[in-house]
Amino acid sequence: MIKQKIFSVETKGRGTTNITAQVEKFITDSDVHTGLCHVFVRHTSASLILCENADPTVRSDLEAFMARLVPDGDALFEHILEGEDDMPAHIRTILSHSDIHIPVIQGRCGLGTWQGVFLWEHRSAGHTRQVVLTLIGD
Amino acid sequence: MIKQKIFSVETKGRGTTNITAQVEKFITDSDVHTGLCHVFVRHTSASLILCENADPTVRSDLEAFMARLVPDGDALFEHILEGEDDMPAHIRTILSHSDIHIPVIQGRCGLGTWQGVFLWEHRSAGHTRQVVLTLIGD
Amino acid sequence: MIKQKIFSVETKGRGTTNITAQVEKFITDSDVHTGLCHVFVRHTSASLILCENADPTVRSDLEAFMARLVPDGDALFEHILEGEDDMPAHIRTILSHSDIHIPVIQGRCGLGTWQGVFLWEHRSAGHTRQVVLTLIGD
Repeated sequence: MIKQKIFSVETKGRGTTNITAQVEKFITDSDVHTGLCHVFVRHTSASLILCENADPTVRSDLEAFMARLVPDGDALFEHILEGEDDMPAHIRTILSHSDIHIPVIQGRCGLGTWQGVFLWEHRSAGHTRQVVLTLIGD
Repeated sequence: MIKQKIFSVETKGRGTTNITAQVEKFITDSDVHTGLCHVFVRHTSASLILCENADPTVRSDLEAFMARLVPDGDALFEHILEGEDDMPAHIRTILSHSDIHIPVIQGRCGLGTWQGVFLWEHRSAGHTRQVVLTLIGD
Repeated sequence: MIKQKIFSVETKGRGTTNITAQVEKFITDSDVHTGLCHVFVRHTSASLILCENADPTVRSDLEAFMARLVPDGDALFEHILEGEDDMPAHIRTILSHSDIHIPVIQGRCGLGTWQGVFLWEHRSAGHTRQVVLTLIGD
């Protein structure tokens, strides 16, 4: 069985949006008992991560780390058409993930206890980001 | 056809554990001729890598590089509840991978000659880490 | 339905090769309406990225960033058998991706407008790199 769903996330600029509930609902609304759920973001300036879901300072520390690792306005970058955050957004996307698969185990989302699925906006301004869910299983 | 298996890896603190044999056995024990094998780690402080499988200094160099890139005890981090290695473990996980798919080609694990699958423990102390294998194919 | 294809890419040393057309053709030549296409590179010194496909300075900036982040000839590295670019190539591979899944949506490659699939050679010299495409869907 294969099911697919596309939805949008409105971001408010740099930072993470928890989309775990959407993924879990997509899985439990299906009849899949064993399988895989693919999560895909159709952009090159926003990405996906599996991240600790309890303490929000994990995600603010992650943001601070990435801002230091890939500095906005770095003189190294030629690609600055859309601003100082343009090229860093592409690099941050590649250093994290555009797609993630989560196992479906006995009809349920197989994430570990502390794992959440987050969309990570890398541009300073808010954007509408498309996410594609594809579920394959029995 | 879909098959799934969950197993645990006992780690001894920071470092890599080669789990290629478990993945290969799971594939060859099945009747799948063409397909994909998903490997997933259910934690946010341990990750997966496909890494050169011959010279162990590749993995010690990788560990040294990551320790320098994401230093324990960095003053940048607020999330230090579980110690100086807590937040670096989350970042190292995101910079590497929580899931990997390996193609099944003519009934065999389709890794390249030099590719091995390694679980990478990022905490200083040993942990029990759960790995989920899911195989889809014909 | 499952289809699989292996092809080679001749690289000319460090840099990216756009393989989006090969992925798109593999998808449209099949009869899959809804599914997933897996792209896998069978090496530990070359990787895959989904990257902005319009302005080539995005990829030269990315290359410059990685060259600074993981310097050739870094005194940290013991694994230098094949040269100063050997260990950096392994690290660059792990920091990017060995496999990517792209959704198939209504019979077409589901990449976003600005996403391209690139093979990224990390060695200074050119190599022959094997790529495995596996398509699962209805």
